[in-house]
Amino acid sequence: MITTDDVRAAAQRLEGRVRRTPVIQAADNLWFKLEQTQHAGSFKTRGMVNQILAAPSVPPAGIVAASGGNAGLAAAYAARELGITAEIYVPTTAPAVKVAKLGKLGARVVQVGDEYAEAYAAAVVAARSSGALFCHAYDDPSMVAGNGTLGLELLDQIPSGFDTVLVAVGGGGLIAGVIAALPGVRVVSVEPVTSQALHAALAAGGPVNVPVSGVAADSLGARRVGEIAYDMAVFASTPSALVEDQAIVDARRRLWDDYRLAVEHGTAAAYAALTSGAYRPAEGERVVVLICGANTNPADLA
Amino acid sequence: MITTDDVRAAAQRLEGRVRRTPVIQAADNLWFKLEQTQHAGSFKTRGMVNQILAAPSVPPAGIVAASGGNAGLAAAYAARELGITAEIYVPTTAPAVKVAKLGKLGARVVQVGDEYAEAYAAAVVAARSSGALFCHAYDDPSMVAGNGTLGLELLDQIPSGFDTVLVAVGGGGLIAGVIAALPGVRVVSVEPVTSQALHAALAAGGPVNVPVSGVAADSLGARRVGEIAYDMAVFASTPSALVEDQAIVDARRRLWDDYRLAVEHGTAAAYAALTSGAYRPAEGERVVVLICGANTNPADLA
Repeated sequence: MITTDDVRAAAQRLEGRVRRTPVIQAADNLWFKLEQTQHAGSFKTRGMVNQILAAPSVPPAGIVAASGGNAGLAAAYAARELGITAEIYVPTTAPAVKVAKLGKLGARVVQVGDEYAEAYAAAVVAARSSGALFCHAYDDPSMVAGNGTLGLELLDQIPSGFDTVLVAVGGGGLIAGVIAALPGVRVVSVEPVTSQALHAALAAGGPVNVPVSGVAADSLGARRVGEIAYDMAVFASTPSALVEDQAIVDARRRLWDDYRLAVEHGTAAAYAALTSGAYRPAEGERVVVLICGANTNPADLA
Repeated sequence: MITTDDVRAAAQRLEGRVRRTPVIQAADNLWFKLEQTQHAGSFKTRGMVNQILAAPSVPPAGIVAASGGNAGLAAAYAARELGITAEIYVPTTAPAVKVAKLGKLGARVVQVGDEYAEAYAAAVVAARSSGALFCHAYDDPSMVAGNGTLGLELLDQIPSGFDTVLVAVGGGGLIAGVIAALPGVRVVSVEPVTSQALHAALAAGGPVNVPVSGVAADSLGARRVGEIAYDMAVFASTPSALVEDQAIVDARRRLWDDYRLAVEHGTAAAYAALTSGAYRPAEGERVVVLICGANTNPADLA
């Protein structure tokens, strides 16, 4: 279990190293936290920087991570800012544009295997062999606590208070941190019907492997939810909402049309819970939607 | 001349009708005001709503405006929200996608002439004939005062204070409002080399017609700066910076790459003054960049 004190300690470590991302009031009882404006385009930069700073020391071999997505970008960014080396493992199927982005941030990119699980396994082996610090994409206490720091900011940014936070869930590293940061707040898990690792875990009584597909799979497509996230969700009796792919596409379009926010599909899932009715706030319920990432190709918003 | 009191009166009128747009601290002495998240995608919604609400009454014929760009969208949006009819004049050369957007907001679109000046002249005649309220795109006291309300918000949003605001200038409706809102603050005009109506006016001792071209012409391409803006700029001894088109393209790219902000070229001009060195802040100078619109096609940010 991660505590509010863990999140506060992370916030101290991150001071001056991550952006305090802004909040916009979208309607009388609705706010968006614009975390997509974070360094490297997602909340994961908070967790990655915290993982590295919370380690007793950073080995000469630097850090190793496995991710062709937001976590990889965050790890590469964090390493560059902290002046250490990063080795990022991605499957050979990773799009060239993602590999190029990681390289541009100064990371060494290693392409192994046909899918994420193989790249992950190779990264773990490589870290053991070189002594590098292995940085998990979500299921690590310091990752979770770092991610949760955005929740603490909300307390300052919405002084009138709020009741509910809608969080898009993949591996669960963000929702676990938000639950820890905000005791007493209803933190709602939103997953695509096509990638529902937390929903399935809650139904099964523990993390289980799930099939993964759909428009948001690049950011939310974890095959298995993290142990920490599962434990935190059970502890908090986290409500779990599911959204269809089309609702995600529509919500992403609305964020652009109505607010000029270009976000990734996974991020739009959280808003889709509202726009599709998968989550229906009570009369007067004050809701925050985390706009958590924008590592997206905005071309189809034209 | 528009005064701070005029802007305060506008802010009262606009209460609950426009968004209080967020601010992000981008660096130690640098903030962005994210006004592109305003209704209809630009600051002009503030001025248009204020023009309508400040009028003694709205005639049965509703409002008339001339603009295929941000002012037209803002006028159409404002009319819809206030439950009145809007007739928007655009040249026959206006892209179909812009005409469709105006229609989607419920406006009647009239296409006249080959360029903006002809559509403008036809709009003035039509308003006189029908008795409709003619809403100017920039050179109107209520437009200026309404636009200036974003400046008042900055005072609350950056409690530590700031020295300078960088404003992209087309017809000057925004910079005039910001000068009025923020006495004692250095408000800097930024224009493309290819569309420099205020710069030319300051050099000539009064508004003059200028040639207009370049990547930002769709939002900043006013052939002649407004009288109000010219007077306010002279009164405030407004510094004037010019930026090359390539610097605008680069700055727009950086706003996406570094902050995931998809903005129009005209908006990026303000940031380009910093990134290109056209405006060089002194050591410790605290600078705000107005990110003022995002009615853009984000496809090329892919």
